[in-house]
Amino acid sequence: MLTPKEEIAARVSKLQALMQKNECEGFLISQNVDLYYFSGTLQNAQLYVPVEGEPVLFCRKSYARAKRESPWEVVSLANFKLIPERLADLGFKLPQRLALEFDVIPVASYLFYKKIFNQATFVDGSNWVKDIRSVKSAYEIDILRTAGKKIAWVFERVPELLKPGFSEFETAAKVENLMRETGHQGCIRIRGFNQEFYYGLLLAGENGALASFNDGVTAGAGLGPFYPQGPGERLIKTNEPVFLDYVGTFGGYMVDKTRLFVIGSLPEKLDYAFRTALEIQEAVLEQVKPGVNAGDLYELAVSKAEKAGLGENFMGFGPERVKFVGHGIGLELDEMPILAKGFNLALQEGMVFALEPKFVFPGLGIAGIENTWVVTAAGAEKITIFPDDLVSVSL
Amino acid sequence: MLTPKEEIAARVSKLQALMQKNECEGFLISQNVDLYYFSGTLQNAQLYVPVEGEPVLFCRKSYARAKRESPWEVVSLANFKLIPERLADLGFKLPQRLALEFDVIPVASYLFYKKIFNQATFVDGSNWVKDIRSVKSAYEIDILRTAGKKIAWVFERVPELLKPGFSEFETAAKVENLMRETGHQGCIRIRGFNQEFYYGLLLAGENGALASFNDGVTAGAGLGPFYPQGPGERLIKTNEPVFLDYVGTFGGYMVDKTRLFVIGSLPEKLDYAFRTALEIQEAVLEQVKPGVNAGDLYELAVSKAEKAGLGENFMGFGPERVKFVGHGIGLELDEMPILAKGFNLALQEGMVFALEPKFVFPGLGIAGIENTWVVTAAGAEKITIFPDDLVSVSL
Repeated sequence: MLTPKEEIAARVSKLQALMQKNECEGFLISQNVDLYYFSGTLQNAQLYVPVEGEPVLFCRKSYARAKRESPWEVVSLANFKLIPERLADLGFKLPQRLALEFDVIPVASYLFYKKIFNQATFVDGSNWVKDIRSVKSAYEIDILRTAGKKIAWVFERVPELLKPGFSEFETAAKVENLMRETGHQGCIRIRGFNQEFYYGLLLAGENGALASFNDGVTAGAGLGPFYPQGPGERLIKTNEPVFLDYVGTFGGYMVDKTRLFVIGSLPEKLDYAFRTALEIQEAVLEQVKPGVNAGDLYELAVSKAEKAGLGENFMGFGPERVKFVGHGIGLELDEMPILAKGFNLALQEGMVFALEPKFVFPGLGIAGIENTWVVTAAGAEKITIFPDDLVSVSL
Repeated sequence: MLTPKEEIAARVSKLQALMQKNECEGFLISQNVDLYYFSGTLQNAQLYVPVEGEPVLFCRKSYARAKRESPWEVVSLANFKLIPERLADLGFKLPQRLALEFDVIPVASYLFYKKIFNQATFVDGSNWVKDIRSVKSAYEIDILRTAGKKIAWVFERVPELLKPGFSEFETAAKVENLMRETGHQGCIRIRGFNQEFYYGLLLAGENGALASFNDGVTAGAGLGPFYPQGPGERLIKTNEPVFLDYVGTFGGYMVDKTRLFVIGSLPEKLDYAFRTALEIQEAVLEQVKPGVNAGDLYELAVSKAEKAGLGENFMGFGPERVKFVGHGIGLELDEMPILAKGFNLALQEGMVFALEPKFVFPGLGIAGIENTWVVTAAGAEKITIFPDDLVSVSL
């Protein structure tokens, strides 16, 4: 499955328009996901994008794979310190202003680039990349829809896997195995420094209320201080929330879905919170359309939570509350837009985001919902196409 | 399982000795694995290590978890820009020379630190951290031994999973599921920028000879340009190499093991290469002891490969050859020491490394071996304690 040239060329054109606007003559793309997006290959390479004309890909390895996968000129280069020299050979004028992805490339690489492009000043191009990537094409949305179907298939099979007396961890292992059988790539790509995520969270009872280092609403107990998130040793019991928050993948793209299960019935407080989360989802979606401000959608969700008397449990508890209710998703789990406090960005057609109103009750657990949506001219279209209702599994 | 305070304190003392030597007054540790190593917790936090006295941990979340897990003073801090102010409040003199992990922290964070510590000059402390982490304590080696036992249990079960006509991918899914059942953490931590790795590689026939973006000897076909490594759709056949290179984990620590399987018998060329790999392993291990130079061990391996007439297939083929035969391993897959060309570093007691002599034959596959070893006063002790011989599975 090669990304079509016209798809990649359109992405590069958008980047060049932003470079032009910011008086930037070149952009050296380094990070693997950005490389894949702008070049069609995820090999060990650096993509030089001039403000005008076609990019050139400098590839350490595998040259053969990069050559097959990318529509751009691919130059085999054992050492990236030769990039300026090769650019000059190829007739490029060396950039006075060169953009890099400041949000992800390590300091050591930055200092290396400063040395080899010693004539240049450096500018941060991360936000241009993130803005462009936030708006998905029809080609990308098709791939995302397939990811949605794959995760639906897995969630349909969860009820038969849930048994009281089995641990979160062993139950999660079965869910993960089903995910993998659908062709899941295994690794979940996250842009944020120090973030990591496995297939998903399967959290029972009060473990659903445990926050950790990650930027999410909850994390669970995990395996210990060395791996402090995800399923742990706790056994699943009856009449408590069993919270599944999983990431499906297809063709490199991800979708995010949360659904709540219970063996028996849910405590009243959590049941109420769950129904409130569904109402918040509905209220937010009614407002979704191109031009609407992402931060306003967050405020709408907060005000609905407060009106329901659940303000202090919304999106975490106490100092561990997070201040968003949704996040962009695509090739990475943490894309733009963020439906967050003060996030002043107008939604555009083609943006894809996960909306996840959730309520956390320390000692009791978590209740909420999450689906992945695409912004269309007509509103929000669901990508994780399966039902949202609480799944009561009988004993 | 909390890391004992004396263990963590010994690590910090080693770091402070290197800081002293390099006239560095403070080290701000940011990366999650380094944080875990020097503080006992992997929460969203920053560890400030002064050149003398106890460190202090500034924690965004979860404060409760960090407090329970770390022996150091934990200060709850919603915004890291307040670190200099809080350090002053706590009686610390603000550092004139401040170390950061230049190899991993993003440029954006670096610029942030430059702003908030505007009195300081910044130095790269990555190598101090890597050097200290390369020498494992008795406590760490015990954990690594358990990881070795867990992966042994999985490899013993591989023969019953290998069937001709099944794809690499579906067979790998079964192996991964067994790994997970042993309590594997799922995520493999790699320090290098743009590196990623799932549980392992299960590569059949000529797919074993496919290099990719990663720093390893081989990578396989993977799922497509968006995920260009690991098992793919190719069906496993009889009389061809089936190469398994997997990472076992326990308590956050990893071990690396490769073993070669075949349904039927191996083509003569690969069989010869496999036997040569075992001989290289033996020859290198005979030399392993404290004080021996890591680069010399690489040269020894290369000369043995050349003498066997397999020089051009050793550790890759053509421009895709890698120039190492072993790598340190621990909390991350790519630690020090590297048994690599020109790597001038003396082995020390307690260093743990994976030794992986392998031969690549384009169009045919890969043959080789890998085990994880600890350097002892008496030589090398095997951590991946199960046999190395070729496993012939009958039809």
